[in-house]
Amino acid sequence: MQLAQTLRRSALLYPNQPALIEGDVRYTWREFADRVARLAGGLIGLGLAPGDRVAMLADNSHRYVEFFFAVFWAGGIAVPINTRWAAPEVRFAIDDCGARILIADPVHAAAAEAQRQDGAELAQLILAADRDMPALAGWAHWEDLALGTPAEDAGRGFEDTACLFYTGGTTGRSKGVMLSHANLVTNSLTAMLNMDIRGGTVHLHVSPMFHVAGGARLFSVTLAGGTHVVIPKFEIEPFLATIERERVNITIIVPTMLNRLMQHPDLESRDLSSLKLLSYGASPMPAALLKRALERLPGVRFLQSYGMTELSPVATVLMPEFHTFEGPNAGFTASAGQPVYNADVAIRDPDGNTLPLGEIGEVCVRGPMVMKGYWNQPELTAEVLRNGWMHTGDGGYMDEHGLLYVVDRIKDMIVTGGENVYSAEVEDALYAHSAVAECAVIGIPSDQWGEAVHAEVVVKAGMFVTDADLIEHCKARIAGFKCPRSIRFHDGELPKSGAGKILKTELRAPFWQDRQRAVN
Amino acid sequence: MQLAQTLRRSALLYPNQPALIEGDVRYTWREFADRVARLAGGLIGLGLAPGDRVAMLADNSHRYVEFFFAVFWAGGIAVPINTRWAAPEVRFAIDDCGARILIADPVHAAAAEAQRQDGAELAQLILAADRDMPALAGWAHWEDLALGTPAEDAGRGFEDTACLFYTGGTTGRSKGVMLSHANLVTNSLTAMLNMDIRGGTVHLHVSPMFHVAGGARLFSVTLAGGTHVVIPKFEIEPFLATIERERVNITIIVPTMLNRLMQHPDLESRDLSSLKLLSYGASPMPAALLKRALERLPGVRFLQSYGMTELSPVATVLMPEFHTFEGPNAGFTASAGQPVYNADVAIRDPDGNTLPLGEIGEVCVRGPMVMKGYWNQPELTAEVLRNGWMHTGDGGYMDEHGLLYVVDRIKDMIVTGGENVYSAEVEDALYAHSAVAECAVIGIPSDQWGEAVHAEVVVKAGMFVTDADLIEHCKARIAGFKCPRSIRFHDGELPKSGAGKILKTELRAPFWQDRQRAVN
Repeated sequence: MQLAQTLRRSALLYPNQPALIEGDVRYTWREFADRVARLAGGLIGLGLAPGDRVAMLADNSHRYVEFFFAVFWAGGIAVPINTRWAAPEVRFAIDDCGARILIADPVHAAAAEAQRQDGAELAQLILAADRDMPALAGWAHWEDLALGTPAEDAGRGFEDTACLFYTGGTTGRSKGVMLSHANLVTNSLTAMLNMDIRGGTVHLHVSPMFHVAGGARLFSVTLAGGTHVVIPKFEIEPFLATIERERVNITIIVPTMLNRLMQHPDLESRDLSSLKLLSYGASPMPAALLKRALERLPGVRFLQSYGMTELSPVATVLMPEFHTFEGPNAGFTASAGQPVYNADVAIRDPDGNTLPLGEIGEVCVRGPMVMKGYWNQPELTAEVLRNGWMHTGDGGYMDEHGLLYVVDRIKDMIVTGGENVYSAEVEDALYAHSAVAECAVIGIPSDQWGEAVHAEVVVKAGMFVTDADLIEHCKARIAGFKCPRSIRFHDGELPKSGAGKILKTELRAPFWQDRQRAVN
Repeated sequence: MQLAQTLRRSALLYPNQPALIEGDVRYTWREFADRVARLAGGLIGLGLAPGDRVAMLADNSHRYVEFFFAVFWAGGIAVPINTRWAAPEVRFAIDDCGARILIADPVHAAAAEAQRQDGAELAQLILAADRDMPALAGWAHWEDLALGTPAEDAGRGFEDTACLFYTGGTTGRSKGVMLSHANLVTNSLTAMLNMDIRGGTVHLHVSPMFHVAGGARLFSVTLAGGTHVVIPKFEIEPFLATIERERVNITIIVPTMLNRLMQHPDLESRDLSSLKLLSYGASPMPAALLKRALERLPGVRFLQSYGMTELSPVATVLMPEFHTFEGPNAGFTASAGQPVYNADVAIRDPDGNTLPLGEIGEVCVRGPMVMKGYWNQPELTAEVLRNGWMHTGDGGYMDEHGLLYVVDRIKDMIVTGGENVYSAEVEDALYAHSAVAECAVIGIPSDQWGEAVHAEVVVKAGMFVTDADLIEHCKARIAGFKCPRSIRFHDGELPKSGAGKILKTELRAPFWQDRQRAVN
């Protein structure tokens, strides 16, 4: 139950096997562990003390993998930061967790430097880049740290916090989810069992490592002693070429990626024979897409994970055998799957009573995957964590096979292009505009993104504003993916309940007629 | 990390699948869980409070499996008792752990009753037997409890103690090893990964459940949602018939069992095609026996586990790929294997320094499999558990593949003329002689050398060898000071423990009567 130990073990057992590959960079387990020990020494040399937070602002790279393990090895807490965030959001996370060290890749170096010049209390910035790219003035260089003296593993583990993953919230304020070493090792063991991740398994990391969905897979592959293959982001041609060249066995996809894959003109001529499993989450796979994928990729199995950052992140999995349209296991592709090992999943009413199978209530989860809490937010923690049960805010029911169906998000959240967007955050940004009298943000169907962020707005009497104005206004405050893609202006009030609550279901209805809303 | 939860989960996911089979008794997961909930209610009705110890004195049976889970469900601590113990040893364990409830099967009911009449403070005795067998006066009946009102799962888990497994010790006094829910669930997850135990896996329990080696397998099969098949003890004909009838996939064996299997006259005519894995422990598999087994059971893989009760119990495994005599993985069958997931294994000198690969020292293990401690024995606990490291008392070294070689119990190490002699080295030399069926090397008192190397040998049927022959044979292989000074030939087997380990203490006893052995 110590994440640095998983690296040491793989280095002991598989010293000369490939551990970490990105393009021409290829490290064996011995080399990877050696770099991590030196990087940890470098971080300690820069003042890192046990329990200190270290933030990372970067695209995926082999150095992102090293970042996590070097921080664990040095005894720190890794804080990966969403690269899509606007500057005030990044600043909030840095201030909130009190990170004194921020690491950035060349793409995000200017944004990192701007944070410091804007007054963020950063004692040290580090450039994570190739050796031949010089660091900015006052910065350290990752590759210099990698040449230093190796540190001893600090030996943190079990209930010690390993990572803070920041996640949006209904309050509009983002929260640092504290995941312990035990949380992440337990999730790794169940992932290894469910996905058959072993020594020798080649895993392609294409999901952002700043989300726990992508990040957690780094820990399972390291524990298994498999091979990490990293590409900076999803682009169809490098994706296919990397699978072919490295004989990739497993990767994470989202339905939009699979869709693009299916539409690729020369898919038949590519050698994807090494590929065994595609795992996905965030929402069920559209049946038509899954059917096509099963036909065109006959050797590939599919697996859906459902969960949330607070669950490290997996609570249920829809196993490959349920990804079928024939036989006794057919008919379950809309399910979020069955509880993973060690997960208690209960459906509860608002009074906390557990409901019988088939009845809809709040999905609650208990077990070793439940987070320690939100960083420095005991009240918010107590709201969602009660008697060991994580209250997900999702509405759902369970059938007689223990299969979970998520039917609604109790939390007002939109899933767009694999990102969670809390309506409250977007509404807060809109309300900051002087012309907005009233607004409501909802998810509407989008072939490209699953859902798209849409706003319904009432303008103050005597004022004038265009949709372009409002979107521009939002972009200065929140990440681009959170900003409305479309805005509809209302005359008069938005529809409301007797208690004065805006009736979002009514606003959503015309958009979702004849369509099944994709919920995660 | 809650053992009762693993049962509830399997009952939720696989309600109608076979869970527990013994002869004609067949329970589905729903039935098994229902019986456990009622039995737990019965135990609570008899006065069981959270944390109370409940002892079991019985041969393997489906009720033994129920015993563990009913005690967990009720919130108690399960204390399985070795049926081979003499009455004073049983009494010691009952008194030491303060169990007020003792469960016994018909074979051991008289012994249990005698404990009470002898003054053991037992508030309740329970007969674990078929319904038609009446309980003794003042006893409760297991099948009556199974008809009562189901209890709610008490919800104990994580660091709560789940079991006390009593184990002998160098002090001569037996110790209650406290294993937590987290210890046993972690061991289960790694066992599932290493042995491919899944939903649907059929596991034959033939090892005694009062040892953790046999007992722990109950937890992994329950967590996986496999099928438990139980036979009371190892007898060749029921063993084979049960494998055939229930299509058994996995079981635990000891080398002597495999030997008898290999010598069975009509092995070729039996249908063992369902069998996928034979796991064994306690000692490496003799090469000749393994060779024969690989030839005669070509569909079966072999796996060795090394550990001890204090390690829940597994620290290293020799995976199936190393059970070969050809190719790059050949030559490692004498190893105890590689550290399991989450296990740090270090070889240390007496001052606590970690030794380099290849050097012999004490095998030390750290990780989530390390026991909480010895029941009510903080001093003994502190002796073996230092900074999270379990000091096994075994001497060994590790090679460059992370493969552990256990060369001897340190306490068995022979100090002769100022030289250290590890018995295993001498035994290896003796085993290399074609006439040696079995041997054990011990230190015996010597006025000249302090201790002298002495061997106890069983010669193969129909062969003849003298002590001078064997000593000459050894001298060609190992240093003169390591060769036996004396040899005693045995008729029949050497004395062994239930786990199949040769009982060197018993062999040593007559030599050391009235003398103090110098141990380092």
